[in-house]
This record gives sequence, C-alpha cells and structure tokens, in this order.
Amino acid sequence: MGCSDKHAALAADVLLQADLRGIDSHGVARLVGYVRLWEKKRINATPNITIAHETATTATVDGGAGLGLVVAPFAMQLAIKKAEQYGSGWVSVRNSNHFGIAGYHALLAVEKDMIGFAMTNASPLVAPTFSSERLLGTNPMCYAFPAGKYPPVVVDMATSAAANGKLEIAQRSGKQVPEGWIQDASGNYTTDPHALKSGGALLPLGSDREHGSHKGFGLSATVDILSAVLSGANYGPWVPPFVAFLEPPNDPVGTGIGHFMGAMRVDGFRPVDEFKLHMDNWINRFKSAATVDPEQKVIIPGEPELEAETERRKYGIPVVDSVLMDLNGLAEKFGVEKL
Amino acid sequence: MGCSDKHAALAADVLLQADLRGIDSHGVARLVGYVRLWEKKRINATPNITIAHETATTATVDGGAGLGLVVAPFAMQLAIKKAEQYGSGWVSVRNSNHFGIAGYHALLAVEKDMIGFAMTNASPLVAPTFSSERLLGTNPMCYAFPAGKYPPVVVDMATSAAANGKLEIAQRSGKQVPEGWIQDASGNYTTDPHALKSGGALLPLGSDREHGSHKGFGLSATVDILSAVLSGANYGPWVPPFVAFLEPPNDPVGTGIGHFMGAMRVDGFRPVDEFKLHMDNWINRFKSAATVDPEQKVIIPGEPELEAETERRKYGIPVVDSVLMDLNGLAEKFGVEKL
Repeated sequence: MGCSDKHAALAADVLLQADLRGIDSHGVARLVGYVRLWEKKRINATPNITIAHETATTATVDGGAGLGLVVAPFAMQLAIKKAEQYGSGWVSVRNSNHFGIAGYHALLAVEKDMIGFAMTNASPLVAPTFSSERLLGTNPMCYAFPAGKYPPVVVDMATSAAANGKLEIAQRSGKQVPEGWIQDASGNYTTDPHALKSGGALLPLGSDREHGSHKGFGLSATVDILSAVLSGANYGPWVPPFVAFLEPPNDPVGTGIGHFMGAMRVDGFRPVDEFKLHMDNWINRFKSAATVDPEQKVIIPGEPELEAETERRKYGIPVVDSVLMDLNGLAEKFGVEKL
Repeated sequence: MGCSDKHAALAADVLLQADLRGIDSHGVARLVGYVRLWEKKRINATPNITIAHETATTATVDGGAGLGLVVAPFAMQLAIKKAEQYGSGWVSVRNSNHFGIAGYHALLAVEKDMIGFAMTNASPLVAPTFSSERLLGTNPMCYAFPAGKYPPVVVDMATSAAANGKLEIAQRSGKQVPEGWIQDASGNYTTDPHALKSGGALLPLGSDREHGSHKGFGLSATVDILSAVLSGANYGPWVPPFVAFLEPPNDPVGTGIGHFMGAMRVDGFRPVDEFKLHMDNWINRFKSAATVDPEQKVIIPGEPELEAETERRKYGIPVVDSVLMDLNGLAEKFGVEKL
C-alpha cells in the first residue's frame, strides 16, 4: 500500500497480537478490509500524524486519515511520554480509522508500569435504549493494570451486549442468537442474527431497560464523547463505516473516527512494588473464589486472551480458509509471496 | 457529631443534592447510618485529611476515616487544582467512607469546564461471573461532561445489573424482582428479593455470561483497582460494610474504603466553545432519535436527575415517614429542633 517500513511493521504487530490473543475478528482477517478502504482513498498509507493541540498532560492528535493501527500507538506513546514527565497523559484522537484491539494500545502503558486506558468509537450498529436507530458503535473501552507474579489485568470490552463478531459467527452457522443481543428494524427483540442486515441494531450492554441497558448506552456515550466530541472526530451516526461498500455520511461533523488513550504512572499514587503485591492478592482472591459450578473457575479479565496466546505461540495461529484466500488475493495484488 | 461547621455544611450539601436529584437512597436517609458508624468509631467526625503521595497530576489522599461526603470533595478539588495547572488531575483515595452520589463530585469539575470522573468501591454485595461469593460492591462509575445550551451529560451508574436500592423497594413491597438481578447463596438465579439476606448476591451488569456479565464484572474490578488497590484502601471482600451492625473483616488489606476522582480541562483538547457546540449537537441528535414507542423518548444520561431537581426545587423534597422518624430521632439525640 506504500506504508513506510516502520508503519507496516507496527500495523502488522497490532494485527498479529490480536490473532495471538485469540481475537481473530481483529487480526489479519481485517487486512483485506483496510486495503479496500485505502483503494477508496479513505485510508492514507502515508499519513501526516500531527499534534493539533496540547497541554502538559493532554493532547489532541490528528491521525491524517492513517491506519488506526499506527495512529493509536502514536497517541499512546505521546500519553506515556507525558505521564513519564507529569504523572499522567491523556490523548484524544481524530481523523483516524479502525485501531485493531484496544488491549494492544493499553498494554503499551502497562509495560512501563503504568495503568493504560484505550477507547475508540466505531461504525454505528447499536441502538440507544428506547430507540430503533443505530446511533453508536460497539465502542470498546479497555483498562489495563500491571500485576506482579500474575499477568496484567486487562478489561477489554465492547459496550454492547454482544460483539458484532459473535453475531457474524451465528450468521455463518445459521444459528439463532440469544434474546437480548439484537432488535429488528422496528425495535422488537429478535433472535434472528440476520436482523442487523435489514435495519436492526445491536443492544447496549444490559440488553433492556430493566437489566440496565441505559448503563451500556451511558458507557458507549462516554466512549463516543471522549474519543470524538473531544477531539473533533465524527461521533454517533456520523462515524464513517468500516466497510468500503458503505459510503460515509455526506454531512460529517468532524474528521474520521476518534480514539481516546490514557496512561497513569502507578508510582504517581503508591510504590510500584506495593501496588503489584496488592494486585497479586486481588487476583489470587478472585481466582480462588467459590464457584457455582466446580468445573468453572472465576475468570480474571485478560486471562482468556493470555491462554490463547500461550497456546498459539506454541502451536501456531489457525487461519480459516476464507481469510487465507483473502490474504493470498492480497499477495497476488501486491506481488508478494503467497502463504 | 462534632464536625466542623465547614464539613457539616459540605456533607449536608452532598446529601441534599442527592435528594434534590431524586436519588433518595443516597440523601438524608443515609444520615442515621453515618451516625451509627460514628458511634462505633468507624467514622471520624474531625478527620485529618492528608495528601499521602503526589506528582504534578496524580495524588493519593488519606481521608483520615472521615465522612466520604467531605473526603471526596477534598480529593476532587485537588484533582481540579492539578488540572488547572497541568491539564488534568487524578486522585485515588484511601481511608474514607461512603461518599454519597458520585455525580455530585464529578459535577464539581464540570462547573470549571472540565470533564469529571468519580468512582468508589463499596461493601461487597456483587458476585463475579461464575462465583457464588459476594466479592465486589455495586462500585459506581460516573463520567460528567459540560454542554452548551443543554445541561451536562452525567453518566452515573452502579456496575451491577440493579442497584441495591431497587432491591430494597421490592423487599418492602413484597414484590418479586426480574430474573437477572440476583442469585441465591448457591448461585442459582432467583426472583426473591430477600435472597440477598440469606447469602445471595447481586449480579454484575449484563446479568449472565451470555449477556455480558463478565463485562459488568470487569467494570466493577476497574473501579475496585483504581479506588483501592491504587490508593491503599480495602478492596474486594475486605471492604468494610456500610452498616454498623456488620463488623469489618479482621484482616484488612488497607484502610477504609477507596475512591477515584479525575478532572480534565476541555480546553486541553479543543476550545471549550467548540466542544460545547458539538456536545449540544450530540445531545440534540440523540434526543430526536426515532423511538420504538412514540411515547418514550431516548433519555440522555443525567436527564432524569435534572427533571427531579427541577420538580423538587419547585414543590419540595418528599420525605417518607421512616426517614422522617430517623431524622427526628437524631434531632432528639443531638438536641436540635425536630422537623
């Protein structure tokens, strides 16, 4: 695509981390989609990433319409630099694109004994409580904390009841989805995974008002505001679609999509060793909690991804046929060796 | 109780704001409980609130076992002061008590054209996904954003599926609660609101694994870690109970309960006027969204509290008989005029 070597290596690293961590929907499977957006000139392979505005501990970054995979790490490194100097750093990003898994970016801070925050808004697929319109993305938020003898605690979650990837799996396998994941175009709850294609919407975390869907809506709104209203990106229904066959709205309220990154030094609050000791105690207590089913332990946030990574580092990353075909199609297009 | 005039006025203000905003469970109804904790010497009416550790933009505050109602505003004012100087400020708090409504504290930042964050951990009542143990509080998180012509957007939510207050209402009225709010002592879902009294637990936001309860657990864990593991307060099952008839664990891992406060200057990212214009546009778009039921508009986070405040400023705050009796009991105890 003409990315610099440095950018290409970084983008590849972000995608591979997703595959390694078992989040196949956000790994190399996305590459063909990024290329299509580049072909439509909606992704710039040689972006001019700039700091549009800053104070000692805050900044707005303009991603120059680049790959989110390179824009987001730039923003997080800036947040980390500010945290090194002043204790914390916070960066809102506009004019960017899909940034891969939030966890990748948040973990950059953890490596420096900092707490990492990473969020992004996304193509509108989720209806706010009481609405029949798709006005919000699955807007993930990620909080990552270093620990001592245990691996980091990584809370990395879509603010919708179910991630879009789970719906796609049900669509492919022809299965119904649980009630509480989606609604149809009129706003009626449905179990038909195809409802999303005919004007339906994903539901916010909480699923319905009685079970707190207004909280999922509130979290999603928080991500949208921090990522886009604060930076000057598009928000709500104006967020450009991640797929090349859908055109962006012709009345944008900002540029590209938005992210929000943060880093706080642990030793800005208490000595790192003390913190890690208590993190280990926290993790240990929750890991050893009494469980409803003796076979099913309590899962610490980040554990499933780490298990996938351990397994895949050993046995390799399985790639499904359709992704392999896409990748080989790209190899042909760009004249590089096929897999 | 011997609070200074300044502390008494501040504590009264926090409680009255809760009642004004329609959150009766966190208003003057709590006063009798605070007094009981003070009688047991678990709340210090004349606390020595200190800054235990700080950098330019971060700090740990020791609340001196004071009322959370005065400790939390101290911490938020410190965060605001740091934000005024460096763009953002972040304060983790230990050795505190129940802080009332999170929204009060976050809105202190909004008054200064900042974005406010306020969180607290709380007495263990919530079971993590797959566990039969109560290991977390309803751990609320609040994010508050200034707007222009519209009132601020205030996301102020427990990270459990239902707040404990809603359960208490069902207990008093003898009604069943919806499935997905609580489980019994063995971890079976139940609709009996009394299950909590016999070893049951509240469920995290999401209710069950299929609907994302691991996300509610992750959010609650985030609040617990930022508020307590970071500050040196008690976390998880070690958080001291809010009621005087239950003793705190005799193996504390920290002091008191913990909070986390943050403030970020809007103009650290973009001009305030620009931000407010786009906030208004965001709010307007969501307020005018197509709805499933034409009678039920989309509710902007913070709107219900503001409606209650408008109504109650006009017609007064209704006080239920049991609360009136409690307050008059306190009046008698302290030799002040009854209501």
